[in-house]
Amino acid sequence: MKKTISVFGSTGSIGRSTLDLIAHNPDDFTVRVLTAGKNLELLAAQAVQFKPELIVLADDTGYAQLCDVLSSHEDIKITAGRQALLDAALLEVDLCVGAIMGFAGLEPLLNAIKSSKAVAIANKEPLVAAGRLFMETAAKAGCQILPTDSEHNAIFQVFEPENKASISRLVLTASGGPFRGWARDDIMAATPAQAVKHPNWSMGAKISVDSASLMNKALEVIEAHHLFAMPEEKIDVVVHPESIIHSFVEYQDGSVLAQLGAPDMRTPIAYCLAWPQRMETSGERLDISKLSTLSFENVRDDVFPPIKWAHEALRSGQGACIALNAANEVAVAHFLNKDIGFAKIYTIVERMLETYSGREVHSLADIISLDKEVRIASGNFINL
Amino acid sequence: MKKTISVFGSTGSIGRSTLDLIAHNPDDFTVRVLTAGKNLELLAAQAVQFKPELIVLADDTGYAQLCDVLSSHEDIKITAGRQALLDAALLEVDLCVGAIMGFAGLEPLLNAIKSSKAVAIANKEPLVAAGRLFMETAAKAGCQILPTDSEHNAIFQVFEPENKASISRLVLTASGGPFRGWARDDIMAATPAQAVKHPNWSMGAKISVDSASLMNKALEVIEAHHLFAMPEEKIDVVVHPESIIHSFVEYQDGSVLAQLGAPDMRTPIAYCLAWPQRMETSGERLDISKLSTLSFENVRDDVFPPIKWAHEALRSGQGACIALNAANEVAVAHFLNKDIGFAKIYTIVERMLETYSGREVHSLADIISLDKEVRIASGNFINL
Repeated sequence: MKKTISVFGSTGSIGRSTLDLIAHNPDDFTVRVLTAGKNLELLAAQAVQFKPELIVLADDTGYAQLCDVLSSHEDIKITAGRQALLDAALLEVDLCVGAIMGFAGLEPLLNAIKSSKAVAIANKEPLVAAGRLFMETAAKAGCQILPTDSEHNAIFQVFEPENKASISRLVLTASGGPFRGWARDDIMAATPAQAVKHPNWSMGAKISVDSASLMNKALEVIEAHHLFAMPEEKIDVVVHPESIIHSFVEYQDGSVLAQLGAPDMRTPIAYCLAWPQRMETSGERLDISKLSTLSFENVRDDVFPPIKWAHEALRSGQGACIALNAANEVAVAHFLNKDIGFAKIYTIVERMLETYSGREVHSLADIISLDKEVRIASGNFINL
Repeated sequence: MKKTISVFGSTGSIGRSTLDLIAHNPDDFTVRVLTAGKNLELLAAQAVQFKPELIVLADDTGYAQLCDVLSSHEDIKITAGRQALLDAALLEVDLCVGAIMGFAGLEPLLNAIKSSKAVAIANKEPLVAAGRLFMETAAKAGCQILPTDSEHNAIFQVFEPENKASISRLVLTASGGPFRGWARDDIMAATPAQAVKHPNWSMGAKISVDSASLMNKALEVIEAHHLFAMPEEKIDVVVHPESIIHSFVEYQDGSVLAQLGAPDMRTPIAYCLAWPQRMETSGERLDISKLSTLSFENVRDDVFPPIKWAHEALRSGQGACIALNAANEVAVAHFLNKDIGFAKIYTIVERMLETYSGREVHSLADIISLDKEVRIASGNFINL
């Protein structure tokens, strides 16, 4: 039996890796839906290759051009715009891969949860901003959430749900990013080009900056809290520059379980695609005998404050988590646009955390509304 | 519900650690049977503390003295001798911990398999000498085998039986023993005192010598082959001097799962005691942030031939595995007794392997008979 799949955000890094794996295992998957933001050329090429029933271009300004490019492929339905994206997420599939970048991925994913047997979640912001709503919706719908982020995927692989009460700690590993070991002043004056130069992983620009600031790891702490229903005080981070051990689960009997692998996103994606089985992949392999050394060190919380902020935000509540995420998205966009320096990312996030900590949210509308408010406030703060 | 337990070999290192864990969790376990070889003083003390129904002293020359020591404890039944040991193994329990040293543990364990829901196997020789018979008997009886050896316990913890076909390799870690990095000539001239000085683990003398010669790892390769029904070419060894990662399971999707822990046998024993749940222990804990570095290197097969021999023995068959184990037991006993030097251990094992490779065994009687034959031949070879 072929597994039916939808890929939301198919032209991004995760989306392309997902389709690469599917292309190598054509007998195992049927692609029903592909969606992209703006990249209509690649979306069209993917549509020709994978023959989905439906493709969606979220940015509807490219709709006519996309139809034109695919005029000879009448069997592929084409839609565009935000509502089309939300509707597409309601098509039933065995697995929905949710790889839309940022907060924009939240609503499609909430729909996908209701119509998919499993959702592989590759963007962390929906969980950060709406973790409780997200997990409750999934539980109610009987949808299995599969974490694709390498750290959470690692934890998922060695997490024993039946022994959850015996788990003493989740330890996320962090590469430390391109600024590990840098002097504080050099970090604060870093350029976008320096920030996106990740030592181990090949990723999009936004997540690369988050990795440099350790905001990525802060978001992952919040994500782990929701994905595994673990209290924040049981979630820690250790710097592991080689990015070989992707995370640890500590049990109270003294056992620590871990997943290791080459820093290649195809490994966690393949795990999600094949779950609960495992597929053969042609991705980069870890050769244990060539590991030589794996090293570990503590996070420099004084230089990189986001992880400390994540714990504070979790203790404060969902409002603070939304502020952390939204302020960071705005700040990083401005940093990449060279409007602000690296240090200002921290300043903005810290200010928004102070402002919005304690703000309660009770519904999706509240979440969206607060997210917007923080974005506007962050923009205003930058333009001061 | 308390779990009923029998501990075969309760006065050895594994037996004492097992009882230490049980003593810390008195509400979870009822000890039905304790057995020891010669150490009647400790067995008596354990009997007074744990109040089993039955204790057995395998060496019946101490029977009268043991009865005398326990004369005021009429509720504890005392038996002695080999047959009493075999009979005791037929008492029904939820879990039998099989920690009798060496080949002598085989027959009691074969009995225990028939009367226990689960057997924690801590001595490797029965699996090495009679792996197929052992695993077939367990499967027929519906008895769950729980590996207690830290390496196999690690593999068991991250081995997905339902995805067995997707496992590409088991990688056992080896500390390298006290002679890692030593020059060949120094190793071959090593004394028993040097050989038993293990860098990480506190263990009995015989297994410490096996660790120095890497014969221990060779036996573990054979053990892994039987425990996990994996072909020998999919079982490898990597030297990992810190003994923190206890073994790896490589999956064909690029994921490598591992169990880590402080080098403290209470961790794998606790896993077996509580399986399929997990218990809280007071054993030594691994602090990931203090790991600093983990290192890995290849085995020096030219200096330490046993792992290569294990693969050859597995390709040859059960007869060769029996020869490997029996010759080694005899050789190590003579080495510890200072009758022979360290180099002679290898000479004896290699000679017996050459002699007995290809010898077929079809029954327990064949196994016992060949084991005896090899021991006599090994002794004769030493006395040449």
